[in-house]
Amino acid sequence: MATPTSPRLRKAEALDAAAGGPAVVLVEPQLGENIGMVCRAMLNCGLTDLRLVNPREGWSREKAEAAASGADVLFETMTVFGRTEDAIADLHHVYATTARSRDMNKPVVTPRQAAEEMRGHVASDLRCGVLFGRESKGLNNDDVALATAILSVPLNPAFMSLNLAQCVLLIGYEWFQTADSTPDRVAPVRAGTRPATREELVGFFEHLEGDLDAAGFLFPVEKRPAMVRNLRNIFQRAMMTEQEVRTMRGVVSHLSRMKPPENGR
Amino acid sequence: MATPTSPRLRKAEALDAAAGGPAVVLVEPQLGENIGMVCRAMLNCGLTDLRLVNPREGWSREKAEAAASGADVLFETMTVFGRTEDAIADLHHVYATTARSRDMNKPVVTPRQAAEEMRGHVASDLRCGVLFGRESKGLNNDDVALATAILSVPLNPAFMSLNLAQCVLLIGYEWFQTADSTPDRVAPVRAGTRPATREELVGFFEHLEGDLDAAGFLFPVEKRPAMVRNLRNIFQRAMMTEQEVRTMRGVVSHLSRMKPPENGR
Repeated sequence: MATPTSPRLRKAEALDAAAGGPAVVLVEPQLGENIGMVCRAMLNCGLTDLRLVNPREGWSREKAEAAASGADVLFETMTVFGRTEDAIADLHHVYATTARSRDMNKPVVTPRQAAEEMRGHVASDLRCGVLFGRESKGLNNDDVALATAILSVPLNPAFMSLNLAQCVLLIGYEWFQTADSTPDRVAPVRAGTRPATREELVGFFEHLEGDLDAAGFLFPVEKRPAMVRNLRNIFQRAMMTEQEVRTMRGVVSHLSRMKPPENGR
Repeated sequence: MATPTSPRLRKAEALDAAAGGPAVVLVEPQLGENIGMVCRAMLNCGLTDLRLVNPREGWSREKAEAAASGADVLFETMTVFGRTEDAIADLHHVYATTARSRDMNKPVVTPRQAAEEMRGHVASDLRCGVLFGRESKGLNNDDVALATAILSVPLNPAFMSLNLAQCVLLIGYEWFQTADSTPDRVAPVRAGTRPATREELVGFFEHLEGDLDAAGFLFPVEKRPAMVRNLRNIFQRAMMTEQEVRTMRGVVSHLSRMKPPENGR
């Protein structure tokens, strides 16, 4: 599902699109592959502010770059800190991701809710961030206590195990959706054509019904009106273009001209 | 972010949770790792109906199982077909995932919209499925023509490259959300305590304000009412429990009893 844009153009555009998005703070990440996959998930969602807290010594930059699939541009601006406190010092609102209940008196929000809250904060020129714990055991409770709220992803309670980059992806995806204006459903029409007018559609209906009358299909006569309505509704749902109406008229014309097979079947 | 449930329980529950969800149809998948990661993403989202169309010969079942991280239970029910037509034969509604515009007269929907539509279909006992193309080049146009609609994930247009399992995860996540009743934001209270009553809260306010009067902080007197309101609002926003009110009274009492340092600072 790669797109054919040039890498150079892609990087510049990707960084432009991302201004003001929440920081992704990885606390004690262990594997370069995961850091790379996080970069890819971030850039998918227009996020560019990656911060590492105390990553495992000797994590493989090489493996990270391979896993980033072109998103390794984020390594150029990535920052590394020794303590979570320092990594989030400039932020106004911080969410801590956790799958487990922490027995804390702290609000718990869904990714969708967190994304909407963060979008509101960013619109007020406030800076937000999301904390992600190490791969094996998540955030420790002291890190969770540094956060404004807990962010928990609703998933199959019988199988919650989520890869680090997948967790970043789901939260980044919700962030991206809060500002995305893609309509829920569009019915595009190919270049060079347009939706059929009612006149073109009714012209096709009458052509089809005339040929079906001649072929003896719309029979008996008292059932004809209901049969016609049903046929018209099939083609209403098809939402045809002007070109497709002409194609269907050709289909009907050619079928009408067919001779019946010699054995009468 | 693993959960501590037992694998045996986990598998049984995961399959129960999944009845009726859309089929995930992988057309010509090439790598066992990807098939395994798709299993994991599916089970995260309560999906279990995995179908492969013409997978690459010799894909590694071993690597798939490793990547599935416990979701390899799906291999037991997975089905394999030679043609997409056969893989989707029993379905009533089919969505084709694609990142590229296909120049087709076919509706294009977001994952959220598709999830809502599929939830409605499933509620009417209809079967749905989602087609995913091969890793490198996506679905071919003949496969797209077999689908009711195109499903396209809105992501950073400058960096759309999405891994196969991540695409499955985002669509499965939206599917899961349509039936999930997790509140957007909850303010849980630890076991053994409860939110403070207004009487407890006002008792704390008066304790604090009395000690601050004695310490000469609420001064001059004409500013006292506004200072009191501001302090009260800080502790209103903290949404304290009964236990936390007692803790804060202890904090105030101990601070009040402190002697000023000898150098007067």
